[in-house]
Amino acid sequence: MQIGAVLIDIDGVLYVGDRPVAGADRALRELDRRGIPYRFVSNTTRRSRRSIARRLEALGYAIPEPWIITAPVAAAAHLREGGRTRCYLLTTPDARTDFEEAGLLAVDEEADVVVVADAADDFTYETLNRAFRLLLAGADLVALEKDRYWMGSDGLMLSAGPFVAALEYAAGKKAEVIGKPSPAFFLRALRDIGARPGEAAMVGDDIVTDIGGARACGMKGVLVRTGKYREEAVRRSGVTPDLVIDSLADLPDYL
Amino acid sequence: MQIGAVLIDIDGVLYVGDRPVAGADRALRELDRRGIPYRFVSNTTRRSRRSIARRLEALGYAIPEPWIITAPVAAAAHLREGGRTRCYLLTTPDARTDFEEAGLLAVDEEADVVVVADAADDFTYETLNRAFRLLLAGADLVALEKDRYWMGSDGLMLSAGPFVAALEYAAGKKAEVIGKPSPAFFLRALRDIGARPGEAAMVGDDIVTDIGGARACGMKGVLVRTGKYREEAVRRSGVTPDLVIDSLADLPDYL
Repeated sequence: MQIGAVLIDIDGVLYVGDRPVAGADRALRELDRRGIPYRFVSNTTRRSRRSIARRLEALGYAIPEPWIITAPVAAAAHLREGGRTRCYLLTTPDARTDFEEAGLLAVDEEADVVVVADAADDFTYETLNRAFRLLLAGADLVALEKDRYWMGSDGLMLSAGPFVAALEYAAGKKAEVIGKPSPAFFLRALRDIGARPGEAAMVGDDIVTDIGGARACGMKGVLVRTGKYREEAVRRSGVTPDLVIDSLADLPDYL
Repeated sequence: MQIGAVLIDIDGVLYVGDRPVAGADRALRELDRRGIPYRFVSNTTRRSRRSIARRLEALGYAIPEPWIITAPVAAAAHLREGGRTRCYLLTTPDARTDFEEAGLLAVDEEADVVVVADAADDFTYETLNRAFRLLLAGADLVALEKDRYWMGSDGLMLSAGPFVAALEYAAGKKAEVIGKPSPAFFLRALRDIGARPGEAAMVGDDIVTDIGGARACGMKGVLVRTGKYREEAVRRSGVTPDLVIDSLADLPDYL
């Protein structure tokens, strides 16, 4: 493949559960050596960008924090630009800091918008019911991602998507999705390295949001067999990757 | 209306929140006086049939327990008949008793079926994630109801439907719905009083599950303006009731 820039998913590509993917760091250094710019685009919405950067550091990666493009950071900027500052945040306390640092107000009533991330144990009947009532009262529904699940250290874990689907069903409203596969999200990351979609590849483990999303906006889609990769999910998705590789470690061999 | 039998919803029709609907009990006694048989069909899945009967008694209604047809009782019979005895129950502890009394096994692993009721505070990230993993491992998805919400004493409350939608989205499986508007559920109640759909009316506050469901199986649909009734929801539903009355108290005037 003739590729001038690379976007890389984090969870399931750089690490799976608590373990870094073997050879992934070496692959990044090979991209550096060849002068191919790259950024990280993550639908991991449990953690703030700062936490993700620290976690990657602990796993042995030296990645500058601004190179990590996350849905909470993108959503906070998008909401502030649109003047929707009163947010009911269905997020973890950690992800909440991305919104507070962007100057948004975390409120429990009279919200302009209900923001749904992967709130993990903060998804409760009470928090979901509050979100539902705010939606009926007129708040917009913004989803940081609509992924089905991700691969945790002891098995598959529900992501934000199912809870977004629950609120859409309850309130009869469609969510605006900020993270992958939203084209705006990919384009934001490409703008950061001055690359056009036609010359870039997206590397990820989610056939729908990573590969389908990338291809829909003109990028090449490279699927890795790490993380939540399952052959059956690929078959059922109707999406055809441009390339399937065992892990990020193999990427330089194909560029 | 020429009506020979009546099915009546409970929550929102006999009571709203903690208060009985004025005149509803008198209407039931009027049906008794005229010899019009009736049964109660409820999508309330937080409580066992015994608890519902006791609650109605406390609210001043004298209703024989077998006259109350609930989705948990119907589901337990349906699952036992089909030999699906190992159930992961996403229900309240109270509703669980209906399944245990029917001889089903409540299990946390190797489940034949995931059963979703309105589990209220027992809907947690952990219980939903367990249900999701069991579905991926091959369990069937059975929903006791798929209602969006109901009217509680301090506002609208999420019902089982949004959580069913969440699991359908996560696992890529459609739920089998046991309660209203499933025709089998209405027919089971009618069989109990030896009535045919064409001579029966369903009285309820849910335009979709009560009125739409009843009309789809040949019954008349009578919408009450108590409970979760909202004019806008009726307009958006595309369902036209045969009759709209202020409350159950007014029913005898139209028969």
